[in-house]
Amino acid sequence: MTPNAATPAGSDAELQLGEGGNLRHLLTLKGMTRKAMIDLLDAAESFLSPPGDPPQRSNILAGRTVGNLFFEASTRTRASFDLAGRRLGADVLNLDVNTSSRKKGESILDTIYTLEAMAVDFMVVRDAGAGIPAYIARHVKKHVSVLNAGEADVSHPTQGLLDVMTIRHHKPDFANLVVAIVGDIRHSRVARSAAQALRTLEVGELRLVSPPGMAAEDADLEFARRVDKLDDGLRDADVVMALRIQRERIQDIEGIVDIDNYTRDFGVTRERMKLAKPDAIVMHPGPMNRGIEIEGSLADGEQSVITEQVTNGVAIRMAVLAHIARSHGAW
Amino acid sequence: MTPNAATPAGSDAELQLGEGGNLRHLLTLKGMTRKAMIDLLDAAESFLSPPGDPPQRSNILAGRTVGNLFFEASTRTRASFDLAGRRLGADVLNLDVNTSSRKKGESILDTIYTLEAMAVDFMVVRDAGAGIPAYIARHVKKHVSVLNAGEADVSHPTQGLLDVMTIRHHKPDFANLVVAIVGDIRHSRVARSAAQALRTLEVGELRLVSPPGMAAEDADLEFARRVDKLDDGLRDADVVMALRIQRERIQDIEGIVDIDNYTRDFGVTRERMKLAKPDAIVMHPGPMNRGIEIEGSLADGEQSVITEQVTNGVAIRMAVLAHIARSHGAW
Amino acid sequence: MTPNAATPAGSDAELQLGEGGNLRHLLTLKGMTRKAMIDLLDAAESFLSPPGDPPQRSNILAGRTVGNLFFEASTRTRASFDLAGRRLGADVLNLDVNTSSRKKGESILDTIYTLEAMAVDFMVVRDAGAGIPAYIARHVKKHVSVLNAGEADVSHPTQGLLDVMTIRHHKPDFANLVVAIVGDIRHSRVARSAAQALRTLEVGELRLVSPPGMAAEDADLEFARRVDKLDDGLRDADVVMALRIQRERIQDIEGIVDIDNYTRDFGVTRERMKLAKPDAIVMHPGPMNRGIEIEGSLADGEQSVITEQVTNGVAIRMAVLAHIARSHGAW
Repeated sequence: MTPNAATPAGSDAELQLGEGGNLRHLLTLKGMTRKAMIDLLDAAESFLSPPGDPPQRSNILAGRTVGNLFFEASTRTRASFDLAGRRLGADVLNLDVNTSSRKKGESILDTIYTLEAMAVDFMVVRDAGAGIPAYIARHVKKHVSVLNAGEADVSHPTQGLLDVMTIRHHKPDFANLVVAIVGDIRHSRVARSAAQALRTLEVGELRLVSPPGMAAEDADLEFARRVDKLDDGLRDADVVMALRIQRERIQDIEGIVDIDNYTRDFGVTRERMKLAKPDAIVMHPGPMNRGIEIEGSLADGEQSVITEQVTNGVAIRMAVLAHIARSHGAW
Repeated sequence: MTPNAATPAGSDAELQLGEGGNLRHLLTLKGMTRKAMIDLLDAAESFLSPPGDPPQRSNILAGRTVGNLFFEASTRTRASFDLAGRRLGADVLNLDVNTSSRKKGESILDTIYTLEAMAVDFMVVRDAGAGIPAYIARHVKKHVSVLNAGEADVSHPTQGLLDVMTIRHHKPDFANLVVAIVGDIRHSRVARSAAQALRTLEVGELRLVSPPGMAAEDADLEFARRVDKLDDGLRDADVVMALRIQRERIQDIEGIVDIDNYTRDFGVTRERMKLAKPDAIVMHPGPMNRGIEIEGSLADGEQSVITEQVTNGVAIRMAVLAHIARSHGAW
Repeated sequence: MTPNAATPAGSDAELQLGEGGNLRHLLTLKGMTRKAMIDLLDAAESFLSPPGDPPQRSNILAGRTVGNLFFEASTRTRASFDLAGRRLGADVLNLDVNTSSRKKGESILDTIYTLEAMAVDFMVVRDAGAGIPAYIARHVKKHVSVLNAGEADVSHPTQGLLDVMTIRHHKPDFANLVVAIVGDIRHSRVARSAAQALRTLEVGELRLVSPPGMAAEDADLEFARRVDKLDDGLRDADVVMALRIQRERIQDIEGIVDIDNYTRDFGVTRERMKLAKPDAIVMHPGPMNRGIEIEGSLADGEQSVITEQVTNGVAIRMAVLAHIARSHGAW
């Protein structure tokens, strides 16, 4: 397995770099160098505190404003960016926006231009449409940064970073790791960004475990092994990440998966985890459907690192914001 | 009338105490000692400012995060905790949550675990379900505190504290006081917590004034006098607290009360207040239905201490947060 | 054209003045002196920063609380007041309120009394009802200030101020200016406040350009020229302000305007702007319906000062808040 090729011109990967090759936006993990990724993970480590201690703070964003534009509903990711921004000294503006109030491409830009004109320097954007973060990034002034907080089924880069940060803490030797991501790979931006980050860190083996109807066809995922039986996916794995089944969309996916038997066939349980390595860790991006894609007692058990993922999420978002603030050519 | 018996093991009262017997959570007023309650009232006094002066501030919660989890709608209590937290230097996170997004017991815990992992140290919880604050308190890590901001019809401890704080300001001699609470006692957490606080402070006489269908059966309220005629309830009272009639639920309560005549029978008016002591004070937890359970001109008149209750509410919440922060064994 | 007559007793204009004749509330631009207005514009200039620089900050509102009470939905005006308050050091409380939760006049006062009792010193109010800001201002304690953030179709004073601030930056010689406001004048609080501000600054000529069914009948607007053909309105204009067509209300206005042909007849386009002076500027209060009342490429073009209006809006709100804080007799 080899790391990514050089950043192609005109790509999101190129678009997100500012002067000196530092991040100006965070749109994608594609094309991010191994060194750049490790630097972010290291920076995020420095934002961790022991449980119960007050969280780390800094004033690097003092006087700056972070705008949270979540065109899709979110509780945890929004809260995570909110706290990350405030703990770096920023003013955080949470906007009430939703897709229904937006009829066409221009009007999202008008919202962005309005915030830009109010001196909002960071636009944290979640949207159900593919390409929206890059579209925004192409239109903002040079002092503004765009952070992708979840883009359709395409990518969720801070989630990918917090996932590899969590894995690295427990299993630092990526070259010898077997990682299994289990569930609806096809529609999952979490899987895509985790896969991208794992590839950049040169993971030994990545298994994408799903019913055939939920397998992904992306060329970018060809380096990974497709597995359509859970037992084969879990066997000797070091890391198992269960993905959320979006029950609110169940009617849409009946044609592609035997949903009544999903838990029997693809639910990650304590019993089934015996196939994995004894010290394997269990991950989930949340929110969980306990008893569906993951057994509750497994989520709460010793192998689970699910709440560590949440903690690391705040630290990763602080690291990204601080990195951009520090290296911003326009400031 | 005697104060409460000692705190029974395994009760909410015991659960809410940390090391050294100080409050770690605030779940209930049951079992709180008279001394502990008076200490909180005294601390709250120190957070008051003259009208027009800036509110008192402190940095005791600097670097800490308060999460407002209101699973039931609220404007005033949420705003009160929000301002209390910020005026003590905390970051306050207001979460958009509602019962519809929560299907079972586990998922509220997952929300809590997520916030805990984001270093939210105080969980301010309002919920329509009995036992939820204690349930959460049993599951959080030892550096986390749970504050009950309204629990079903069971309790609303900061409301009870602000009520006795307000009474004490005007009528410090509790042993010689006659207090009348008027309205739907049965479904009122406000009545229960006020009654509990008054009992702890050894009030002379508490009258619970309601139509028979709205009387409460709780053993905890047996120390109080049940009165089913408003005139009998008001006669020579020092303090009269009118409860909100929840008109949005009127259809549910038609069987138990003659709602068309409610105002005639149980509406507290200026005329009727002539039965009470000349210097009696009038209270209401808000929001009021003027012209229903309370006459508007009475609410705005000289006897009314309704806005003082609001002011004292912020001070009480600051006192509780500061007390917990100061005595927190885990920090 | 002459400036306004002296402030009539009992008017909103009088009501909004505190001790020494300084602003205590901002309810209306009517009756504001030319000097007072220019002082506010000058103060707002001092709150501007170069793009990319952090916004200006001050601690003049440190320890004070600003409450945003938007009984009508708003994104940009709410965000603008929110950032203005925070950049002056205030705590800002955004309240979830809407008309549906409010049945009668008294209950809005109870919300205000509650906030007043929580030491909210500034009430920023948007409401669909005429007279609400003044009604509130008549009832608050003397340390509380009320800021009109949009009142029915009556007025929107901070919008009027930001509009003349933007015009002044490009065209300081008001006596020789021709300003055209285009669109639904009749229902527009933006048009009324802009007209008022322009009148106070003694603008050379104000044209109100609309279909006859959207013309305003107000006596206050008699100083302006009514024009019912766009070409006549634009000819040799220095400033062109297009108003938003509220498409969500289109069914209500079909009787008064030929909506299918609105864009043909009253849409401001690049082609049509050739009738105006070559250096004319184009304004819009936002949010825009691109392709309806304004051509998108015009909104994004060199003549457009639309994002400057947004930037100036934050500065104007900071100037108003700071002015009131500085001159507040009750503090």
